[in-house]
Amino acid sequence: MKVVELSGGVGGARMALGLSAIDGIDLTVVVNVADDLPTHGLYVSPDLDTVIYTLAGMEGPHGWGRAGDSFVTNTELARFGMNNSFQLGDLDLALKIYRTERLGMGDSLSAITDTVRARFDIAARVLPATDDRVRTVVTTTDGLVLSFQSYFVDRRHRDHVARLEYEGAASAVPAPGVIEAIASADIVLIAPSNPPLSVWPILAISPIESIVREHSRVVAVSPLIGGRAVRGPAEAVMSDLGLGTGTTAVLASYRGLIQHLVVDTADSSEAGMRDGVSVVAMDTLIPGRVEAERLALGILGL
Amino acid sequence: MKVVELSGGVGGARMALGLSAIDGIDLTVVVNVADDLPTHGLYVSPDLDTVIYTLAGMEGPHGWGRAGDSFVTNTELARFGMNNSFQLGDLDLALKIYRTERLGMGDSLSAITDTVRARFDIAARVLPATDDRVRTVVTTTDGLVLSFQSYFVDRRHRDHVARLEYEGAASAVPAPGVIEAIASADIVLIAPSNPPLSVWPILAISPIESIVREHSRVVAVSPLIGGRAVRGPAEAVMSDLGLGTGTTAVLASYRGLIQHLVVDTADSSEAGMRDGVSVVAMDTLIPGRVEAERLALGILGL
Repeated sequence: MKVVELSGGVGGARMALGLSAIDGIDLTVVVNVADDLPTHGLYVSPDLDTVIYTLAGMEGPHGWGRAGDSFVTNTELARFGMNNSFQLGDLDLALKIYRTERLGMGDSLSAITDTVRARFDIAARVLPATDDRVRTVVTTTDGLVLSFQSYFVDRRHRDHVARLEYEGAASAVPAPGVIEAIASADIVLIAPSNPPLSVWPILAISPIESIVREHSRVVAVSPLIGGRAVRGPAEAVMSDLGLGTGTTAVLASYRGLIQHLVVDTADSSEAGMRDGVSVVAMDTLIPGRVEAERLALGILGL
Repeated sequence: MKVVELSGGVGGARMALGLSAIDGIDLTVVVNVADDLPTHGLYVSPDLDTVIYTLAGMEGPHGWGRAGDSFVTNTELARFGMNNSFQLGDLDLALKIYRTERLGMGDSLSAITDTVRARFDIAARVLPATDDRVRTVVTTTDGLVLSFQSYFVDRRHRDHVARLEYEGAASAVPAPGVIEAIASADIVLIAPSNPPLSVWPILAISPIESIVREHSRVVAVSPLIGGRAVRGPAEAVMSDLGLGTGTTAVLASYRGLIQHLVVDTADSSEAGMRDGVSVVAMDTLIPGRVEAERLALGILGL
């Protein structure tokens, strides 16, 4: 059974871990790269790395970085007055250095990611949505224009969002294999990631949006439980953008794209047909592999 | 008393440490940068870093890197099939990342080095010989054309040297302050560094060679003890290049440039006037600050 997952960071990575634990699943994870950023001259791809480390069973405890990492270099950066609030672990740095060096040689992000995947013994295909440069730009209601990292990390997503743009998306080409994987997938799964911040930047690449729209079996998992995001500002951003709240907001985020929406059992009162979408309730809290695998099995059974 | 030292790596760094320990010395260290190399996309400047770390009292035990460093990132690089034989420590990496990022912003190596010096509380001025790109190219008697690192690290300086070139030196401009420092120095000291590999690349920048040649008090310290280099291939390279052996080779290396040559007490039979140069014997083995300071005091007394 061929499954394609569209994924942001932690929620998508755990969903991928659950899917990858099921026998007979041919999994391709298409990952948001609109949060990628150069940090101290190194190319950091937060969602790709979270997916890689999670699938390798090596993810850090807080949704970023690697388990058991040390921070010798990062701490020492402060000697030179460098802003080291973006915590780069020593093990994690090796991946960043490797990727940056290969990008400097002209290799594509997707080719590099495939080597990285193999080096971590990950069976699933992991594809960046694009090898081109796409960047989320956040305009706040106060008129600030912020990079994703500035909005999310530096300002801890405290601003109200007036507008989101995905710079470069209009001309970006899907990474090799993305369109083919979606076209041949038995099911396309939109991960319990932040719709406007993690999934829309993938769909903003119009050939990806088109092929998903044409697909007859697209299931999204709501990132909300009891109307609130498990982590991050999903409900606040959707509300800021006028999409409403709760399941309504998630349905509005994926209008015309999905046949099924999985909401949490805490929101089971929302189940039923809504706007032509079958809303079903499952336990969507996936702190680890076991819960993620159970959720994945439930979704594949829809 | 104003002192300028022309320095390569370990020997020059220790000499600088000895000079910096003396009260009333205004020290400028002009450092070879012809061994600089990009390593994994990071700008590595071996001699500058050895001088900085040694003056900060933080040098590693083997003539490179920092004391007490760990190698988490460097070890992990092997996962990706990267050649990690050039041992980059975790603390050391912070300096490399800082320098590479600032170079990428268009800052000069000399400006960056001055910030680094200050961040390590080093009082002496530390200047790269040039902000331009100069690279030592080694042609072996077997016809191989090697970068310095390839010759020195990868092949462990086992090849016979047919020719040395300092690519870029002809058009390189001395870093800001180098010419002024030498012109106003009471004494110019050529460190016990490898003459062809560490000092000639500085002198290959012709305005530096000219101002040193005009100076009336230039003292070189031989890197040889009993005819052999304390470390590295100095005697082999000088012999390969037809400069002879022992004190003769060192004198030939600095012909027309120096008034004094300090040789080791093991070579005291060489003392006296030779080719217009006053050769004097002192204890030139400087494993640490105390010995280096004693040697520095002896040299300043010439």
